[in-house]
Amino acid sequence: MDVVNLTQKLALFNDYWHPRIVGELNGQQVKLVKLKGEFVWHHHDAEDELFLVIKGRLLIRLPDRELWIGEGEFAIIPRGVLHCPVAQEEVHVLLLEPASTLNTGNLRNDRTQDADWI
Amino acid sequence: MDVVNLTQKLALFNDYWHPRIVGELNGQQVKLVKLKGEFVWHHHDAEDELFLVIKGRLLIRLPDRELWIGEGEFAIIPRGVLHCPVAQEEVHVLLLEPASTLNTGNLRNDRTQDADWI
Repeated sequence: MDVVNLTQKLALFNDYWHPRIVGELNGQQVKLVKLKGEFVWHHHDAEDELFLVIKGRLLIRLPDRELWIGEGEFAIIPRGVLHCPVAQEEVHVLLLEPASTLNTGNLRNDRTQDADWI
Repeated sequence: MDVVNLTQKLALFNDYWHPRIVGELNGQQVKLVKLKGEFVWHHHDAEDELFLVIKGRLLIRLPDRELWIGEGEFAIIPRGVLHCPVAQEEVHVLLLEPASTLNTGNLRNDRTQDADWI
């Protein structure tokens, strides 16, 4: 039952697209991730995913539109919905999703990164 | 699948200790609440609860110690753990907890407020 400081945790790593776990509750995990560039299109079969932007501005491409998420904003991508996150500049994001969630969703590929606790 | 701006949502209400729901995923709800003063000691039988401080500094009294949570920090209170939130000045908090969670935990009393969607 510790207090977690988001800025301090974000200072512990510098690689992109590699989520770090910073908390767990009710089967869900709180993760921090730094993003830059374009990810891959994917979906999660059974997991809704929350993106809360801590720094920067995140674009999430959807099949029919785009979501722009700024600092202090979040969006929830429901299970089954195809999405592709894009960070034109470096973006810091707090993710909330079930502990089972893989960053590349239903695919395991060269962009897959298993999340580690920090 | 909307983008939720925390500052804009917080501007929609001014009462204390009355959580508002701003998102739902995987059976969990994201809530915003403004706190001032001292709450009541309570616990949640089956729900872990995350407190992320957006503004101000929150004190959570535990039976054996105190947690101070500042802006950009969070703590998770596991199910079953007695706690009493205290806000010496106004504090804005993002809560994450199961949809079933009552603000007063295992008790329904004059401090109980059912959360509404905003």
